[in-house]
Amino acid sequence: MAERLRDVGEFGLIRRIHDLLKKEGVAPPPGLTVGVGDDAAAFRSRPRYEILVTCDCAVEDRHFPARHVRPREAGRRSMVVNISDIGAMGGRPLYALVSLGLKKDTTIGYVEELYRGFLEELNPFGAVIIGGNLTESAKGVFIDITLIGEVKERTLVRRSTAQPGDVILVTGYPGQSVAGLQLLLRSLAPREHPVVSAYIHPSHRAREGAAIAETAHATAMIDTSDGFLGDLGHICEESRVGAQLFQERLPISKGLMDAASLLKEDPMELFFRESDDYELIITCAPSHRPAIQSAVTATYDGPVTEVGRITEWSEGIRLILRDGSQRILVPSGWDHFR
Amino acid sequence: MAERLRDVGEFGLIRRIHDLLKKEGVAPPPGLTVGVGDDAAAFRSRPRYEILVTCDCAVEDRHFPARHVRPREAGRRSMVVNISDIGAMGGRPLYALVSLGLKKDTTIGYVEELYRGFLEELNPFGAVIIGGNLTESAKGVFIDITLIGEVKERTLVRRSTAQPGDVILVTGYPGQSVAGLQLLLRSLAPREHPVVSAYIHPSHRAREGAAIAETAHATAMIDTSDGFLGDLGHICEESRVGAQLFQERLPISKGLMDAASLLKEDPMELFFRESDDYELIITCAPSHRPAIQSAVTATYDGPVTEVGRITEWSEGIRLILRDGSQRILVPSGWDHFR
Repeated sequence: MAERLRDVGEFGLIRRIHDLLKKEGVAPPPGLTVGVGDDAAAFRSRPRYEILVTCDCAVEDRHFPARHVRPREAGRRSMVVNISDIGAMGGRPLYALVSLGLKKDTTIGYVEELYRGFLEELNPFGAVIIGGNLTESAKGVFIDITLIGEVKERTLVRRSTAQPGDVILVTGYPGQSVAGLQLLLRSLAPREHPVVSAYIHPSHRAREGAAIAETAHATAMIDTSDGFLGDLGHICEESRVGAQLFQERLPISKGLMDAASLLKEDPMELFFRESDDYELIITCAPSHRPAIQSAVTATYDGPVTEVGRITEWSEGIRLILRDGSQRILVPSGWDHFR
Repeated sequence: MAERLRDVGEFGLIRRIHDLLKKEGVAPPPGLTVGVGDDAAAFRSRPRYEILVTCDCAVEDRHFPARHVRPREAGRRSMVVNISDIGAMGGRPLYALVSLGLKKDTTIGYVEELYRGFLEELNPFGAVIIGGNLTESAKGVFIDITLIGEVKERTLVRRSTAQPGDVILVTGYPGQSVAGLQLLLRSLAPREHPVVSAYIHPSHRAREGAAIAETAHATAMIDTSDGFLGDLGHICEESRVGAQLFQERLPISKGLMDAASLLKEDPMELFFRESDDYELIITCAPSHRPAIQSAVTATYDGPVTEVGRITEWSEGIRLILRDGSQRILVPSGWDHFR
């Protein structure tokens, strides 16, 4: 019989997690003075660095379907979401706190696999888990992660500082993961389909975000966690700018085209509307585009595509179609005239 | 009809929360460079200070009964738990991240009242909310808070550094809150009963914890979030020491005596075993007791009681009864011979 939470108790499970972290995690960064096991963790920041902090919560069967996503994959995804946020500011992850809501019958093996997923994403950065919380949830597992990072003073990239005339760049192929999730849920494609695989093995562009920040040429940056259009909308709203996009330039992958046809959906809708992948949208002066692109391609094989331009706030977000006609795009939840 | 989450949407609710924080929160500490509204928040730490970080999650009907606890009280309690952890390290809270799991039919008023509860606890410290997350929970509300604080270098107080010969001090009257909760749940006393009131209006000793750290005389400190015995057990286990307690010295309040009789329970059991209040256990050399006591009573009206001594690890935790006989106490989940 699989060992369950009720067999080993809260403190028993905490010990098992500590043992796993010691064995499978990396040595903590030199700034850490108190790790897991006290009322709070403690660390020192490096001179001339700012601290970054973000949190994101994943709920079973809402953010990841338990039937299709293995615990290690759920662990990776939950950590990737947070790493992506640190990267989108130009930072590097250092310390994570993991708060888990577990079911009475959650197995110890399940929890250990979640942690292996977290470590798979943290270890390459030399980042460590320094605290957290275990609790019994009312229903279903939830995984709430707070991730702390650092960024060199004055290199941090906001979403509120895009300028009319800037070019809009995007990494990779937004929309793939969510299409993959839909294919999985509707049993329309195997785990090996490229967009299903994009969902199951989530990736982030945190290394690339840090390299972009180093160039000091990005005027704004954001990750696509609310979907390409939603996040471009955040840049526009916070920067009080508009945007012009060119349909013919949108990086819509062959996999996404295929998925859209299986799902009987418009691939452009999948590209614009949905989330579940963690690419970067970057704005910069046109003359700085090559520097940004080099920063990304130093560590990333995929494309960095110029998809449009930042315009005036009054223009809203417009899509220039192949035939030259225009369509106004409105991010969901967006009130342009607020 | 009360406005609900589904009426205003996620982004609508986020705006309402931002507005409330602007109106009812305090101005952010000078170190904050990016607050809510970007991928991550950013701040700078002060030279010669360490950063503290803790997180704690409260689940509706598990950590607070929705029928008896108003949302503002639930908000206060969730924040107090975290403030207490920062205080137990000798620190001062600065920044909070709030991750909420909400039900589809959660009202906007409920969420606003939660936030008012958070602010009621944060404002007196000049601390602010700098981020968070909203999600739909599978069932019931959950409130997961990460709290970040600061402590002067070299004043931080751990739980792992108690020494045989130290005295054991405790603030206030542990056990009251949980007795109050039991009275509430079993409708045995009104909200005005002193221990019920202790539960409903939770308090922490974070100010006192910081003052204790300033004396540099505490050898170990912990808050009583796992119950007096559970947390004394953490000190013993992490410091590899034992403890001797004197029954006649335990600060058992008249209210707790009364509650125990209503609940037909042993008041000492309530004192030792249960949690839900956030007092401090402090160890120090006997000669430093007056300094510690003065540090606490500068801001706290209640007692600081010397309840026993730290002994050798091999002694375990012993209670000396009024008749001179001894009882071995074993914290739940504690494996002394591990």
